[in-house]
Amino acid sequence: MHGKLEGLIHQEVYRDNDESFMSNRSGASYAPEGGCVPVVAPGDFKFSAAFLDHGHIYGQTKGLLEAGGTLCSVYDPDQSKLDAFCKKYPQVKAVQTFDEILDDESLHLVASAAIPDARARIGAQVIESGKDYFTDKAPFTTLDQLQQIRTLTRATGRKYLVYYAERVHNEAAWHAGELINQGAVGEVIQVLNLAPHRLSAKYRPDWFFQKQHYGGIITDIGSHQVEQFLTYASAKDATVNFALAKNVSHAAYPELEDFGEFSLTGDNGTSFYSRVDWFTPDGMPVWGDGRTFVVGTNGSMEVRKYIDPQRNNPASLIHLTTQDETREIDCLGVIGYPFFGQLILDVLNRTENSMGQEHIFKASELSLLAQEMADAHGGAF
Amino acid sequence: MHGKLEGLIHQEVYRDNDESFMSNRSGASYAPEGGCVPVVAPGDFKFSAAFLDHGHIYGQTKGLLEAGGTLCSVYDPDQSKLDAFCKKYPQVKAVQTFDEILDDESLHLVASAAIPDARARIGAQVIESGKDYFTDKAPFTTLDQLQQIRTLTRATGRKYLVYYAERVHNEAAWHAGELINQGAVGEVIQVLNLAPHRLSAKYRPDWFFQKQHYGGIITDIGSHQVEQFLTYASAKDATVNFALAKNVSHAAYPELEDFGEFSLTGDNGTSFYSRVDWFTPDGMPVWGDGRTFVVGTNGSMEVRKYIDPQRNNPASLIHLTTQDETREIDCLGVIGYPFFGQLILDVLNRTENSMGQEHIFKASELSLLAQEMADAHGGAF
Repeated sequence: MHGKLEGLIHQEVYRDNDESFMSNRSGASYAPEGGCVPVVAPGDFKFSAAFLDHGHIYGQTKGLLEAGGTLCSVYDPDQSKLDAFCKKYPQVKAVQTFDEILDDESLHLVASAAIPDARARIGAQVIESGKDYFTDKAPFTTLDQLQQIRTLTRATGRKYLVYYAERVHNEAAWHAGELINQGAVGEVIQVLNLAPHRLSAKYRPDWFFQKQHYGGIITDIGSHQVEQFLTYASAKDATVNFALAKNVSHAAYPELEDFGEFSLTGDNGTSFYSRVDWFTPDGMPVWGDGRTFVVGTNGSMEVRKYIDPQRNNPASLIHLTTQDETREIDCLGVIGYPFFGQLILDVLNRTENSMGQEHIFKASELSLLAQEMADAHGGAF
Repeated sequence: MHGKLEGLIHQEVYRDNDESFMSNRSGASYAPEGGCVPVVAPGDFKFSAAFLDHGHIYGQTKGLLEAGGTLCSVYDPDQSKLDAFCKKYPQVKAVQTFDEILDDESLHLVASAAIPDARARIGAQVIESGKDYFTDKAPFTTLDQLQQIRTLTRATGRKYLVYYAERVHNEAAWHAGELINQGAVGEVIQVLNLAPHRLSAKYRPDWFFQKQHYGGIITDIGSHQVEQFLTYASAKDATVNFALAKNVSHAAYPELEDFGEFSLTGDNGTSFYSRVDWFTPDGMPVWGDGRTFVVGTNGSMEVRKYIDPQRNNPASLIHLTTQDETREIDCLGVIGYPFFGQLILDVLNRTENSMGQEHIFKASELSLLAQEMADAHGGAF
């Protein structure tokens, strides 16, 4: 059987050397180029970066810069992280203490990608200093942190914004929401997300493998997925039906959860299922073949977010099937990243067009509740 | 935004007239051409067909004929169903009573696609007459029926075989199992099946919409999916984590369940999730864009069973990603349907190479248990 098949197999082999591995193939430094339109003049929106533990800070910074933001200062206790950031953005001023950023009253916002369990504490400092905060996901690792920040944002009116990159920094994922809003599939019945990620273990910091710091796989990469569900399904809340997280085959990292899955039912009756995992094989040329499937009463949709296997890499496209036709919508380089301009204007105008504060909290809350259920089931811990 | 996108949309429009709708576009008459190698000489394996309520009887018959079976007689109480079958297979002898088939000691097997809740009763008659039985799925609509047949097969040694077509009559789905057995993805961690089906309501008989007769969406099309899980994951049993079935938007058919989903954990720790639905939009050129995703410790796999949207229709292909490469394996017209020859030899030699009896029962049992959980949750009934 094998020999017979050999001639029918269309092969593509992708190889990267280690040096370029993180930049090209790992989601940790995912930062798409271009695609934002400046919404403000230079100096109108000032932000700084602080705590650069996760490479996503580069995606956050790039998005804000391309939307017209002005990068002022940067802080990290680790000089090498600081140097790398300053090399990438020579216009930025490195400061020696976080207080220098907190005390700078000219700043509108502080972008941050700290170790996950430190994000809420840092965010509270930023908010108490009178600025808005823009953190990498996951925004919280415990429900307590969430509750404290919910209270703080209500009391102060400041924003705790989150970089849910898998929708806001992906053209097809963003446009899927626009199409759904236009009624392309009728009423949404189900959103289903497949979210494989590449582990790249040797490039990951220690905290990545310590559950107290990263919070569990559903808390972490699950929060992205819930955010997409709430957006596409127009759900305000949901019930967790089932959740599971475990370490299948990475005994060297006993606190790593390499596989998770969970099911939600939205407050409007919509269904959501997601699988999250760290099993992207090395032969996959991107860090994860992320997909979203949406079933509606009047059509269905598949989103291929990062690659169209065997066809295009990178890719960012939608297969939309309606009652009349099926078509492919190529979003790459077309849709851009409107999120960042909307976020800047939200900060300046105190609006919620990029993402509502309660939506941001709810995406995290539901992923934390699902993680809690998974933890209660047992698993590796 | 819409105007801007217009030029980027690659459109394919598929239209069928009503006459060809069922034959080309509805899963009810799915019966792939060719691909079986005769395993016996004419007359060595004799079978008859009886109770032709579901069009799948044509797929069952075709598969057995192409593998070398000899079609002897046919029975149905409805003359028009009988006439249609005889027109398709002029070599067959129409008989006036089912007893004529039961009493024919030259027959090895009776193939049947009765109304689902009658399948066990008819199967018991066939088995008690000393022949094996080959029914369309779902093989049972209640756990009681299953228990009775389990007892009967153990007592008699006869076979209660099931046409789980979505694997055994699909080249990519069949070959996926072969690849997994060869270790292509390492140890299987998860199997996930998306199983949309076209409703084609106006072509469906009344019993299709009556839950007592069809048993619920998970009992019915869910049984296919569980069978694939047990096969791909080498699971012998499983626990139902969560199951849901409901009528989302077909108020005219109050007992139809148009959407279902369920999650299992295998006795070997593997995960299974499936969504089953009747929401294939009319613009989809096939009756369902069925997909299977397999995550393994050492690779992953996507099976596009019936179509590669925008690319090929029909299609039956596998995207396999290993640690070394990602490749597309085109199975259409290559793999064939070895199941039918194996089944014939199993009947003649009393072996279990095509499918084990306990595997057959377990696929149904787990789908019935999931349906039971879904029913207990509420839903439309």
